[in-house]
Amino acid sequence: MKTPFDTRTFRDALGTFTTGVTIITTLTEEGGQVGLTANSFNSVSLEPPLILWSLAKSSASVPFFTAAKHWNVHVLSAEQEALSTLFATKGEDKFAGLEYEAGLGDVPLLKGCAARFQCRTAFTHDGGDHIIFIGEVLGFDKSDRPPLVYQNGRYALTATKPREDVSLSSSSIAVESGYTEDLLGYLLGRAHYQMIHNMQSRFQQHGLNEQQFFILSVLCIQDGLTLEQLNRFIDYTGQRVTVEEMDSLVQKELIALDTKGLQYQLTGEGREVSVHNIAQAKAIEESLVDQLGDGDVMALKLLLKRLVVKTDPGLPDLWSDKKEEI
Amino acid sequence: MKTPFDTRTFRDALGTFTTGVTIITTLTEEGGQVGLTANSFNSVSLEPPLILWSLAKSSASVPFFTAAKHWNVHVLSAEQEALSTLFATKGEDKFAGLEYEAGLGDVPLLKGCAARFQCRTAFTHDGGDHIIFIGEVLGFDKSDRPPLVYQNGRYALTATKPREDVSLSSSSIAVESGYTEDLLGYLLGRAHYQMIHNMQSRFQQHGLNEQQFFILSVLCIQDGLTLEQLNRFIDYTGQRVTVEEMDSLVQKELIALDTKGLQYQLTGEGREVSVHNIAQAKAIEESLVDQLGDGDVMALKLLLKRLVVKTDPGLPDLWSDKKEEI
Repeated sequence: MKTPFDTRTFRDALGTFTTGVTIITTLTEEGGQVGLTANSFNSVSLEPPLILWSLAKSSASVPFFTAAKHWNVHVLSAEQEALSTLFATKGEDKFAGLEYEAGLGDVPLLKGCAARFQCRTAFTHDGGDHIIFIGEVLGFDKSDRPPLVYQNGRYALTATKPREDVSLSSSSIAVESGYTEDLLGYLLGRAHYQMIHNMQSRFQQHGLNEQQFFILSVLCIQDGLTLEQLNRFIDYTGQRVTVEEMDSLVQKELIALDTKGLQYQLTGEGREVSVHNIAQAKAIEESLVDQLGDGDVMALKLLLKRLVVKTDPGLPDLWSDKKEEI
Repeated sequence: MKTPFDTRTFRDALGTFTTGVTIITTLTEEGGQVGLTANSFNSVSLEPPLILWSLAKSSASVPFFTAAKHWNVHVLSAEQEALSTLFATKGEDKFAGLEYEAGLGDVPLLKGCAARFQCRTAFTHDGGDHIIFIGEVLGFDKSDRPPLVYQNGRYALTATKPREDVSLSSSSIAVESGYTEDLLGYLLGRAHYQMIHNMQSRFQQHGLNEQQFFILSVLCIQDGLTLEQLNRFIDYTGQRVTVEEMDSLVQKELIALDTKGLQYQLTGEGREVSVHNIAQAKAIEESLVDQLGDGDVMALKLLLKRLVVKTDPGLPDLWSDKKEEI
């Protein structure tokens, strides 16, 4: 155990305790809006309803909060990261252009939060280099927005665990090969193919396979690509597109070759089919948001993007307006 | 805003504020171990080093903590969920069979935590139906274990956000089709194929494709399957295995048909190749753990499993010891 005390190391150890993020607002005696970001919030008591937070004695906001009768605590939602950063920055006019309501004592009440607590100071206590404010909660509300999280000095999203265990197999037999349901590669493959499986009825309707679906989707963004250019987006899947595959889409009148016979373009029908395919993929995603929760799907996408960036074999940027050269 | 006050609703609103989970231990005057789970922990002051937590006045542990000079706060790691539940349960002998050290004042110091703080009571304050303990930190340590998280009454893992933005595209052009890098189906497909892409050198070495890799992996767990049984595990990918595909593996002497000509079995070499394939997949996963962090990969797997359960088209259980009928 370390003893007295490198502040940096102590701060790092404290940072392992995960917290939400709050913005606390009040009014100056002249009616000016004051607000700051704090993660030192916690609940204290249910009856009477009390919460607490602490404020550095060095903060310029100390005189306002010690003089104030009312202040509001806003538990921020995952979409309010920019707001958190704004209220953590000194010297900005934080309320300019911000939409808010007037709470008790006219104290600003921000919108779009996970929860809000309107408080009256019950006690203040000395807490070393901080002052501890204990507030009696006079009113509160809550939304279903997923909350913003802070851990080890960074923002985070949460992957919540259902109360019951999550397992794909009922009986787990010993597997000497190490090939288990816990292998990341297996989970990614199975998740991917099950998502695609949900598209099968649409694919069958148009006689498409997964690869042709992807070809139409790529052309929907970057129309007019040669087979070579198309394959630069697809090569990494291990499934090169052939001229025959493209011919089959031409025969279905979903794509057409330009007059030079080099670049493939979506036909009107091809664009329509593709847009509907993507709408179907979005509907599947929406249904997952309903089942897993908005915050968990946000967290999943964040993690997948981070994985894709780390394993990128150097794919061209599909959404860039600069087309790769032929 | 709701006003005075349904306790349940108030508790739900407080639950939107995410916290870590701690276990706090002390000794009775007779030297008996006391411990409880609390998420009301927070940091207060750096100089002097102070932290706080609150304890319900109704708790049986109140006399022990008010009499104690020393107590230890353990910030739990993601792997200590069961310990959290144990110490949140009344009446168990929580320390039986538990490994711990003796901290300052001989107070139990648990192992495997994200961080630990050894404290001496600095002040106690009245906090409605709770007592607020403010502790001076006399010693602490920290590990790199990902922390356990609690939000809205459930355990959670975190998906941490890097300081810089995570984006797959440098310029985002307007996409009328809605096909963007933010589409979950796209991210899953790309993540899956990029993971497989990292296996290419191994595949080429043995002239395998992704499907044959999967066939070998399945046989590694459930050896002796007919083509029909195999396809029950593979059908949902939209890529049925053909007799020709199996023949090609037979010719490579990686699998063999049994004497009845019905069931495929791995040869010795087939098993060896498959075990090495899986070892390679695990090595890729390990390298991602290094890059993304242990906690984030845990969170990713949890979310993928939850997605797989929700989108399962009714696959047979690969790891069950009961084989599906032919």
